This record gives sequence, structure tokens and C-alpha cells, in this order.
Amino acid sequence: MTTDSVQSVNGVSQLFQLLRDGVPRTRAELAKSTGLARSTVAVRVDELMRMGLITPVADAVSTGGRPPSQFAINPAAKVVVAVDLGASHGTVAIADLTGKVLSEKTGEIDIALGPEPVLTWLVETASALLTESGRSASDVAAMGIGVPGPVEHSTGQPVNPPIMPGWDRFDIPGWINRHMPVPVLVDNDVNIMALGERSVAWPAVEHFMFVKVATGIGTGIISDGRLQRGAQGIAGDIGHVQVARGADIPCQCGNRGCLEALASGPAIARALRAQGIEAHTGSDVVDLVKRGNIDAIQAVRQAGRDIGEVLTTCVSLMNPSVIAIGGSMARVGEHLIAGVREVVYTRSTPLATEYLSIVQSVAAENAAVIGASMLAVEHALAPESLNAAFLRA
Amino acid sequence: MTTDSVQSVNGVSQLFQLLRDGVPRTRAELAKSTGLARSTVAVRVDELMRMGLITPVADAVSTGGRPPSQFAINPAAKVVVAVDLGASHGTVAIADLTGKVLSEKTGEIDIALGPEPVLTWLVETASALLTESGRSASDVAAMGIGVPGPVEHSTGQPVNPPIMPGWDRFDIPGWINRHMPVPVLVDNDVNIMALGERSVAWPAVEHFMFVKVATGIGTGIISDGRLQRGAQGIAGDIGHVQVARGADIPCQCGNRGCLEALASGPAIARALRAQGIEAHTGSDVVDLVKRGNIDAIQAVRQAGRDIGEVLTTCVSLMNPSVIAIGGSMARVGEHLIAGVREVVYTRSTPLATEYLSIVQSVAAENAAVIGASMLAVEHALAPESLNAAFLRA
Repeated sequence: MTTDSVQSVNGVSQLFQLLRDGVPRTRAELAKSTGLARSTVAVRVDELMRMGLITPVADAVSTGGRPPSQFAINPAAKVVVAVDLGASHGTVAIADLTGKVLSEKTGEIDIALGPEPVLTWLVETASALLTESGRSASDVAAMGIGVPGPVEHSTGQPVNPPIMPGWDRFDIPGWINRHMPVPVLVDNDVNIMALGERSVAWPAVEHFMFVKVATGIGTGIISDGRLQRGAQGIAGDIGHVQVARGADIPCQCGNRGCLEALASGPAIARALRAQGIEAHTGSDVVDLVKRGNIDAIQAVRQAGRDIGEVLTTCVSLMNPSVIAIGGSMARVGEHLIAGVREVVYTRSTPLATEYLSIVQSVAAENAAVIGASMLAVEHALAPESLNAAFLRA
Repeated sequence: MTTDSVQSVNGVSQLFQLLRDGVPRTRAELAKSTGLARSTVAVRVDELMRMGLITPVADAVSTGGRPPSQFAINPAAKVVVAVDLGASHGTVAIADLTGKVLSEKTGEIDIALGPEPVLTWLVETASALLTESGRSASDVAAMGIGVPGPVEHSTGQPVNPPIMPGWDRFDIPGWINRHMPVPVLVDNDVNIMALGERSVAWPAVEHFMFVKVATGIGTGIISDGRLQRGAQGIAGDIGHVQVARGADIPCQCGNRGCLEALASGPAIARALRAQGIEAHTGSDVVDLVKRGNIDAIQAVRQAGRDIGEVLTTCVSLMNPSVIAIGGSMARVGEHLIAGVREVVYTRSTPLATEYLSIVQSVAAENAAVIGASMLAVEHALAPESLNAAFLRA
């Protein structure tokens, strides 16, 4: 991104951060607060009115019949579509411009079927939800989509996604735009969960990590308030970091001792089966823990320690204030987090842990959809990049 | 930092990024390119002329006796002071506004003496260099300082620095300003080395890690083109991450198996002494390697593997394009990097290493001073924050 586009996006983004509080402002006030030229503000205000993102507000004091000169953002003027695609299910939601979910629908859909059937389901579900709520595609300011694999965020294309056969370099925004002409933002599912969890529970925290523990293990990193994606969009992908305890345990990636091969839901279930306990999925493990099965509790605690071993390096490297543990395995509650804390607080430097909180996800299963809506809303509030997405589409 | 100040800094910073190429521009051109109001540009241009950072340029075409209407940055109009404070030595340099070092001086100074004697030496050395080059403190646009410990960048105060007794929460900018009224930026030494190395060798790389291997081991992380400091300013502090091989080896931090206890210069020397080889410092190890001592070469290679073990997690977490290995131990050459590469390329996922370069530092012993000058120059080019620093001082 050039300095130029940073400036443009920041300028307009700031204008909308100002308006987002619902307080009406004049063009002159917007120009003064942002340092943008009045002519620039006028053009952008017109553009955003045309897009329906802001709305004129009648002046409190009559100005003698002149047209309204104040503007405020109108959360309900447009909606965003928020999508969470998992390995075997998907959720599509409609949210307003503050990111509040208005309606949503979850369905069984196998990501391994490839892009055509999954995206057809996505577009049909989104269209149905829009119709049900009396909206149409022209009311959609942007669509945010989380997928279970690495994504080149600038193009919205998955890159070598291991559990998404047929999706490598598939142009998701391009395909969707043939059926629904809206700006489409695509990101890794753990990244959008980080956005969602932070917006729900830790909006003021600038250095934040979200850890998803489920079939896989990954993290979404927010540093200085910005999502960190890395050079190839795979920052935070800690599932294949080696942990000390696992030297002999093969991972499906071809290496040995990967975190995922020890501490993911299926890995814990496998370890319990080896002890003669009936457990086939992460969900079975959660059920066993909830029924008080001691072996399952011990296995989950050990998984927490393994995750903590890797997070210790993450803490040294990123120096976050908050680490939130989410994903389906987090439903086991404190047993998993206790293992994480045990290792991180033992191994990290006192300075790194003095102000560090390690907590359960609050947004829980809603983190991804809320994050996808945040991704779309942030985009809708920065029309330059929005226009760029339109042009690309 | 509020959205407001980001906007302001970006606005002016962009204005100067434009002017920095040396091409003269008019106020109207600057307003058009930045989207800032003409009145805003006029105020900022005046302010920066007053500070001597930009200079009027005679118009190519005569405008009939009117005063010059074009402006360009003048690299020599002001200087910055760049300072690298190590454990036992310090370097002070004078650089121009492009970051080019004009003169420098290195001295033996023990950081453990505490702030007063070290900063007295710093100010006296800076003053002497300024005088020698026919400059005075009023010519200094900003001073950048790297120190060997964690720093709260916003206040310039070291925070619990382990090898800097007496410096905890010491107000370095405030003390210096009593003797030299210039804006003072303080950062961790590895962070400024990352800035310096990137500006010398990898200016276009947005995701960059610098690893310093010396008496200690630490990293400076640049992600999305921005230095990552973390919540307490200690991001990148990987010296006390545990490595598998070191379970029995005590570290001076009180833990066992820390990377620094195995792979730092003194740690390698200690391991060689245990084999009956005369080596007391990291410098002795470098000498042995350069003389072709097989045991020393093997020890350095193993240290590289230990560092690689930790960097593997860093690669998964940050997804950098380039990792540069520097610090005094990097003088052993390829033996250290070979060990790092061996582990990182074996252990990381193919996607994370496909485009990853692991290379020797190019800036070498100049990385810190160049980085400190970059810190000062970046600040000098964003006068709002510069004024804020003046007000704080």
C-alpha cells in the first residue's frame, strides 16, 4: 500500500470515525477536524450520501429553508453480509453498519466440495436472508468472509489452503460479484475471530491474540490495533510448531511433534482412545470433560500446557496484553486455560506477563461472524478502498 | 495514539515523503497530492520552513519578481543525532535528513554506571561532534537513541532493563533536554538495528525480522512496514524462550534452558571451555572460528540450530519475508546462519518458507547508528509529533 492510499483511506476513515458516534456534523466541522480541504470533504460526503452510508440530518436551528447541512452515519441505511465458512459448516449473517448481527443462518456445507457449490450456497443463503429482512443486494455495503485456510487478503484468494481442495488461487470476490455485485473481503477464519473477539470484549486493547483450538490450532494477532497477516497472509499459523513432548507423534503435515498433532480436538481424542476411552472427536472430549472424566480432564490440561509452550514464544515475540482462547475445544472451560497459564506464567519473563491476561473467549461461537461483519464494516467506512474493490470486481 | 494524531502525522509525513525526493513542489501541488486543505498546507509549509527542514526553491520560470513559490526538502539544512548505547560502549553520530552518517565517535562507557555519567558522555560527545562539523544544537532536528533494554517508546523511559541498573523509568528525553533542547526518541537497541538494517538492505520489504546475536539474543520485528513494540515495548525479546536441548542449563534470569543460556556469545564460550578450549568471550569464539577451529565451528553451528528452533515459531507467527542475522556473533559468517537455516527450513511449513530469505546483516556494526538516525529522521519529518515532544520536554 502506498503512502498515498494510506493517507486517503485514513482521511475518509477518520471522517467516518467522527460521524460514527451518531452526532451530526457540518462539512465545515468535518474539514476542520480532519484537516482535509473543504472541497475534498464535500466530494466525499456526496459520494457517501450516494452510497447511502451517511444521511443528511435536519438542522437543530432553522437556517431559513436551506437544505440540511449536517450529516450523520445511518447504521440501518446499509447492511453488511458476514460469512464464516468452516470445514463442514457455514454461517451467513446480515449485520448493520455498527456490526450488529440482524439475522443469520447456519448450514451443513463441506468446504472440500470446492468453490462452486459452497459459494452457490453462500450467495443463495445471503439472498434469502436479505429478502427475509426486506433488503436487496443493492443495500449491501460490503461482504466479509472467513475461510479455514491462508488467504492473500489483497486479492481475496486462498493460497495453498490444506483443507480446501479446489480453492487454491480461486477468485472468491470475482465469483461472488458475478452473482452479487458487492465489495468482498476475504480473510483467514482465525483472523476474523480475532477481530470479532476484540470488538466484543477488548475494544481498547491494542496488542491482542486470539487462539482457536478446534480441529486445528491457529492464532489471530492484532498488534498496534492492526491485524497482522504477514508476507503471505499466514501469520499466526502456529499449528505446526514443534512441541517438546511430541517428538514421536506424526502429524498429517509430514513432520513430527506439531502442536496440532498433540493438542487439537482430534489429537486429544486419539490420546484418550489409546487409553481405552471412547472418544472420536473433539466434541466427544468436551462431553467427557463436562461429565467429569478425570482422564479427559488431564488430557485437556496437558493440551493446554502444549499450547502454552508455543504461546510462551508468542508472548516474548509479540508482547500482547490479552490472549483469548476460543474455538470449539475452549468449551471445556478452565481446564484448557489452566494448562496454558501454567506454562506461560512459568516460562515467560516477568515483564512480559506482569500485565498479561489469558482468558476464555467471550464471543465464543459468534466470534467469526462478528469479525466478518467488522471486516466488512471497516471496509464500508473507507470508500476509497471500497471503490478499489468495486473496480477490481 | 488517537485517530486524530494518526491522521495529522500521516498528513504531514506524506507531505514530506513527497518532498523528500528533492523535486520542488508548490503549495497547490502539495495540497492536491495530499488532499489537505491549501490553508493547512500553507501553515505546515511555514512551520517547516521556520524549522529549517524545507527550503524555498527559485522557480524555473520567472514569475515576475514574486517570492519563490516552490519548496523542497534540504537534507543538509538540519542534522539528526544518532546514538547507540551498548553494555560497555557507545557510539554517537551526526547524520543528515536522509539518514546519511556525516561523522561519528565511539567510546568505552559502561551502561551500568547509571544514567548521569552515560548521558553526560552522550551530550558532551554530541556537542563535540556538532562543533567539529560547524553545527550547533539548534541545527539538530531530533535525536534517536538505542539502549540495551526494554523501553516505553512513548515516554522514552527504560522499563525494568535487566543490564541497566539505575535506569528504570529514568526520563532520558527530559534529562537530555536540560542540556540540549531537541526532541529525543528512545528505543530498544535491537529495534533500531532492525530499522537500520532494513533501510540499508531491504527498504521495500514490509515483513522483516532482525536477529541480534551477541551477549544477548533479541529480535526487532517490522510487520506491514511498522516496527512492532508490543504492549510494554518488549516485543521481540526471545532471549529467554526455552529450547529443547537446554533443559539442564541454568540462565541468569532464574529459569533453565533459555536461548541466551545456550546460543549467546558467552554461552558458546562457556561450552567450549567445558571441552577444554580457551574461550572467554563471544569475541574469542569468533576468533577460533576464523582460525578454523572445528570445535568452535560445531558449537556455533549448534547455536544456530538453537536460534533456528525459536525462529521457527517466529516464522509461523509473523510470516516474514526476510530474517537478517546480525550482532557481534554474526561475524562468524555462514556457520551460524547455516544452523539457523537447517532448522527453520526443516521445521517450518513449506508455505511459510517458500519466499523466506535468511541472510547475514549487511549494515553489520552500523545497523544501530543508522537505525537511530532513521528514528530521528522519521520523527523530524512528522512535525506534529515533534512539537508534542518539544512540549513534553
